[in-house]
Amino acid sequence: MAVSITYPSSSSWWQIPVGSDFSLANLPFGVVARPGHEAMVVVRVGDSVVDLAAAGIEPELTAAPALNQLMASGRGPAVRLAARDVLLGPPRPEVIVPLADVTVLLPIDIGDYVDFYASEQHATNLGKMFRPDGDALLPNWKHLPVGYHGRAGSVVVSGTDVVRPSGLALRDGEVRFGPSTLLDIELEVGFVVGRPGNRIDVDHADQYVFGAVLLNDWSARDIQSFEYQPLGPHLGKSFATTISPWVVTIEALREAGTFCSPPAQDPIPADYLRAEQPWALNLDLEVHMNDTMISSTSFREMYWTFAQMLAHMTVNGASVRTGDLFGSGTVSGAAANQRGSLIELTWRGTEPLTLADGSTRTFLQDGDTIVLRGSAGSGSSRIGFGDCTGTILPAP
Amino acid sequence: MAVSITYPSSSSWWQIPVGSDFSLANLPFGVVARPGHEAMVVVRVGDSVVDLAAAGIEPELTAAPALNQLMASGRGPAVRLAARDVLLGPPRPEVIVPLADVTVLLPIDIGDYVDFYASEQHATNLGKMFRPDGDALLPNWKHLPVGYHGRAGSVVVSGTDVVRPSGLALRDGEVRFGPSTLLDIELEVGFVVGRPGNRIDVDHADQYVFGAVLLNDWSARDIQSFEYQPLGPHLGKSFATTISPWVVTIEALREAGTFCSPPAQDPIPADYLRAEQPWALNLDLEVHMNDTMISSTSFREMYWTFAQMLAHMTVNGASVRTGDLFGSGTVSGAAANQRGSLIELTWRGTEPLTLADGSTRTFLQDGDTIVLRGSAGSGSSRIGFGDCTGTILPAP
Repeated sequence: MAVSITYPSSSSWWQIPVGSDFSLANLPFGVVARPGHEAMVVVRVGDSVVDLAAAGIEPELTAAPALNQLMASGRGPAVRLAARDVLLGPPRPEVIVPLADVTVLLPIDIGDYVDFYASEQHATNLGKMFRPDGDALLPNWKHLPVGYHGRAGSVVVSGTDVVRPSGLALRDGEVRFGPSTLLDIELEVGFVVGRPGNRIDVDHADQYVFGAVLLNDWSARDIQSFEYQPLGPHLGKSFATTISPWVVTIEALREAGTFCSPPAQDPIPADYLRAEQPWALNLDLEVHMNDTMISSTSFREMYWTFAQMLAHMTVNGASVRTGDLFGSGTVSGAAANQRGSLIELTWRGTEPLTLADGSTRTFLQDGDTIVLRGSAGSGSSRIGFGDCTGTILPAP
Repeated sequence: MAVSITYPSSSSWWQIPVGSDFSLANLPFGVVARPGHEAMVVVRVGDSVVDLAAAGIEPELTAAPALNQLMASGRGPAVRLAARDVLLGPPRPEVIVPLADVTVLLPIDIGDYVDFYASEQHATNLGKMFRPDGDALLPNWKHLPVGYHGRAGSVVVSGTDVVRPSGLALRDGEVRFGPSTLLDIELEVGFVVGRPGNRIDVDHADQYVFGAVLLNDWSARDIQSFEYQPLGPHLGKSFATTISPWVVTIEALREAGTFCSPPAQDPIPADYLRAEQPWALNLDLEVHMNDTMISSTSFREMYWTFAQMLAHMTVNGASVRTGDLFGSGTVSGAAANQRGSLIELTWRGTEPLTLADGSTRTFLQDGDTIVLRGSAGSGSSRIGFGDCTGTILPAP
């Protein structure tokens, strides 16, 4: 594992709470609005944001309602370092805005959204449940990172309520329309494309990925299982996908010592998927339902890396554009409490979870709140994503 | 069928070739660039375009590099009528630009792209080929319009060359990487969303759809068949999708008497898919390979209508945005020469086509050019889409 770089929070004139996800080591980008101002690109620090345009940091890129221009410019790393310089230099309280005074917005204008299926444990668990008599993994799974396009227009920022979707499903053996009764979550990590490209070399992935977010791929299992043959999921997924608002940069992940070697792959994949660099990410991930932590897992065991996903997505000549988003697929570990979806955590509803208030759950009930959390590193090199949260509202 | 409205081309001061797809009855929208000018929204007429901004027609909407602003404004029908008034009024040759003097661009900034699978003949043909021992249609097919998300960033305008994609496929029983050897076409009609919405009433679909284009969903069958389980097609489709450049408006389709009753549906679909209005479209469609017409079919027999697709896509709460595109899926009729893909026309390569030059084809060869054509109405109410074309370039 790479050696991490430390940035003690005490070295800034601005007070950063101890243990904050948003230490000087992180400085992720986001977009906020405040009354009387246009939406603007900011850097998050502690419980506040740095108004980059007010600080005079590349205002032609940062006085913008999305990160896209900044990401396309290639100036992201320099802007982040300039923000750190401000926080380490002479006090400039006029460039700091408390988070309580802003509305946090979706940070990117998303082009295409692709969702992968890269956890061997998750694919195996779902295979066992849905194809009990066959091989748990399909023949393609270890040859390429299986993925499909999701709905970019339904990606929402953390904190947006999620309305329970309705659709056709098999209900008591009949095809009937109604609200989903098997509403689920998927704990994922999402990657944001900065620089456009095609036929991207797997070992150059870090030149094209701007950063990462947490991603909850809400899933209506009953709608999904009726509709998905032969062309894949559609309405069972397209109603909402939530991402965390702060894009943690590739540089922050590297400085925190997050990059590490992925699990060995057998069979050895095709040349275009074979990497020299260690593209796994040592991220600790958690899922909280209401006040109970229901899953705690790691991203480092994912079978396919984000670099392999990007190389795969573009090997056929397809371009990625600035603002494209791709998700890892559900992150599930080997142990029962390391699974990243309710269908796995409750084994298709047969093993209900018990929450701190004594109530039990199989799938999501109206009013339930899900929070995803993620972090890397420790001590003064620790960085985090902040909450990726949503609350279920009843079907209309 | 609705009574069509006639607009004799002779009633304009501008000369429109007899039999042009772009008669006074049509006046579709597109976007062009010419040297020394910004890209602009135009209306196509005969072999020329009307420079709407130069004609003083809503320049704040038409001096734009895409149709999106115009579509979102709801002023499309009024702008089209104003263009017709110009062509029927006193001569104003200064607002006409010959097509030869412009570059035709992709007309829309596409949000999400969804592709359906709405032809019963096509779904049955593919079912017979891929699942010879099972039912040709899967259990969900007659209950809902099956569809999935495609890659918006790979949609290109007619005339763009298509580079043969490479990918992993089963080749002689082994998983190997290489150029696709089963490169195919799909004859489709695409629909462009004008006004945003969600939970759209099937009988209000015409309030949200701005117009239609021809669409070729190029498909690498070998890549697709290896990758597509369980999440649907990805790299087998994502390398390119071609659309015709002129968006034929809902108003033009209506005036040409195109709307008609769809085939009866059995079983009767769910309420949200049950329409009072006749949403089928009586379009004549053709596929040409090099100089040979290889398919001639009609859109009117499609099992699911565009209105049902739009209602379905939004019934779970998902929004459609201005510029979203959805495709019908391959249009195949009952007869062998009415099929809309090579895999069907050659029955998986077992019945090669013979072209006018005496050569034979199963799937696409490098250098082959495909042209899709489509039209509706007849005489002075006839309208057409113009060519939707692409030529295959070798894999790099």
